[in-house]
Amino acid sequence: MRWNAPETTNAYEAFIAGRFEALDQTLLPTRVEWRQWRTIESVWEGIKALRVRGAPAIGISASYGVCVGLQTLFEEGAHPSAESFYARLEECAQYLATSRPTAVNLFWALDRMTAKGRELRANGASVEDAAGALLTEARAIHDEDVALCRRMGRYGAQFVKDGGGYLTHCNAGGLATGEYGTALAVFYWAHEEEGKKFRVFADETRPLLQGARLTAWELLQNGVPTTLACDSVAATLMRQGKIDAVFVGADRIAANGDVANKIGTYSVALAARANGVPFYVVAPRSTFDLALDSGDQIPIEERAPEEVTSPYGRVVAPDGVDVYNPAFDVTPAELVSGIVTENGVVSPVTRETIARIVGENQMAE
Amino acid sequence: MRWNAPETTNAYEAFIAGRFEALDQTLLPTRVEWRQWRTIESVWEGIKALRVRGAPAIGISASYGVCVGLQTLFEEGAHPSAESFYARLEECAQYLATSRPTAVNLFWALDRMTAKGRELRANGASVEDAAGALLTEARAIHDEDVALCRRMGRYGAQFVKDGGGYLTHCNAGGLATGEYGTALAVFYWAHEEEGKKFRVFADETRPLLQGARLTAWELLQNGVPTTLACDSVAATLMRQGKIDAVFVGADRIAANGDVANKIGTYSVALAARANGVPFYVVAPRSTFDLALDSGDQIPIEERAPEEVTSPYGRVVAPDGVDVYNPAFDVTPAELVSGIVTENGVVSPVTRETIARIVGENQMAE
Repeated sequence: MRWNAPETTNAYEAFIAGRFEALDQTLLPTRVEWRQWRTIESVWEGIKALRVRGAPAIGISASYGVCVGLQTLFEEGAHPSAESFYARLEECAQYLATSRPTAVNLFWALDRMTAKGRELRANGASVEDAAGALLTEARAIHDEDVALCRRMGRYGAQFVKDGGGYLTHCNAGGLATGEYGTALAVFYWAHEEEGKKFRVFADETRPLLQGARLTAWELLQNGVPTTLACDSVAATLMRQGKIDAVFVGADRIAANGDVANKIGTYSVALAARANGVPFYVVAPRSTFDLALDSGDQIPIEERAPEEVTSPYGRVVAPDGVDVYNPAFDVTPAELVSGIVTENGVVSPVTRETIARIVGENQMAE
Repeated sequence: MRWNAPETTNAYEAFIAGRFEALDQTLLPTRVEWRQWRTIESVWEGIKALRVRGAPAIGISASYGVCVGLQTLFEEGAHPSAESFYARLEECAQYLATSRPTAVNLFWALDRMTAKGRELRANGASVEDAAGALLTEARAIHDEDVALCRRMGRYGAQFVKDGGGYLTHCNAGGLATGEYGTALAVFYWAHEEEGKKFRVFADETRPLLQGARLTAWELLQNGVPTTLACDSVAATLMRQGKIDAVFVGADRIAANGDVANKIGTYSVALAARANGVPFYVVAPRSTFDLALDSGDQIPIEERAPEEVTSPYGRVVAPDGVDVYNPAFDVTPAELVSGIVTENGVVSPVTRETIARIVGENQMAE
């Protein structure tokens, strides 16, 4: 996604003339369409309908969405009062927060935008300066995410060798973040910055096929040789010696190192262990939830049965069959060779090594 | 499938008046259509296009297909010569053998039909008697398969307990055999003959979804409580303690007990081992290939990439992506708790136990 604005040193001009644009991910891989989201309602709908998905990408979109919502106050040269400006800011944040009620990054990003607004108001900034500063804040949220992803990519690339084969599950790529991704950042760094030649095997990732639709697409876009396979093929690829390491993202990591990630990750981790293949999780420190003692405390979200029984509207299962459709699973820490963060690699994965790299820093922020 | 003929003690009348009927499995689970296959060309097409699938079911269909092909000689009260009758028999067998060139049961069944023909010819049977006898042979092939499946079901049901949960992969059911199935025979016997209450978890089995389309459908038809899930969910079900044992079929078993079966089976076996869940293979002795020293010698068939990239005609992967789409995988013998055959259970699975239950008997037949 991007805030498309003319080059200018004036933040207010960039705010007024800019347009928020993002790829509509629901159309991938058959149609590559950058949409302009000109109203806050369209941003809300885009997040709701998964046109933008992935926790960091949702947070960034919401930050830009606030700017889109504020733009309307300035239409046709209008000069809003400070009162109406800040009221509108709070209104926009509250509205966007209802788009995906469980996305932690969404609330975090909106809180940051409203906190910035309160700070500006307390400092007596003009509404023009405040508008520019809020766009700058949204761009900072975006830029920081990109920088953080690049750092994870750099740390992870040490585990990628020339001529190797690597497996990933679901989409932990640029599409899910500001750019570059988490697990896929490792491949991008190794490919672009280190010039290594290797192949990535992408699990298709049923039921929603993010691996086929998104991961394979963005890897090919970036020139990384990619092979797509059904989820059930991963273990065989490892047994055939084609996989040198696995890299996946994470939704949440407990204090003991248990990792919640897209359904199927645990199965891949078991196959990796059985075949002596290292299994790496790539996630920023914000993914750790040190309040959770272990993965057993992570609730397993169940999604609609139709994702399984009627993929793309075609009925493939008998009427009335029970369906179990968990959105993610928990991989126990003992199956994880290392967790790549923006501050370095946690390995071996224990409470102590996690506390050292994540704990103190996370508390301090 | 069935040879639908009026009740009669005269085999020739059953041959002349009978119709070969089978469920068109490509329409399941949304449409349940028994088709009459009135020409040998339609039988050939039905096997080719997977309207009938599963090695035993293909063999049985081909046997009836020979009878369909011979019927045309008797149209409108014609009385074919012995020469034209037996020439037609060989012709039908050769033609049907080209429908699925890798299906071992297909050749075995056609060989049995032509061998019967030669025996009848040598004995100087009339063409009417020979026609009746060939239908009787086809029915015997069918009946023997059903009996053999029931015996496997009875042996396997000892591992099913009241209140248990069991997992299966792909379709090793009545649809793949004359009736009753192999892995699913275990559930049918435990349910119908022993009155046990339990639940079966069916892997959907990408890419062709035989688990969703066929297994879930036939289990529900037979009143067995069934839960459908994506393949990547199996390991989590085991970790949650919901699975008491796994039962799968087999395409081929080597002398050391390595099992080739539908892609994804190896992954399920690894998850079972990691979670202390017994893993049973259910297969008749004809599935063993004692000429193969180990599973490493079993070639892995690769199928069309479109099965992965365009399920049901909807494109879900980027243009030009490489695809690896193996039809089956190999589960090493050490992950198999037992192999249920029609002559008893091979357990532990070793060269010696296999030779004892399979070897001598297989040689003697």
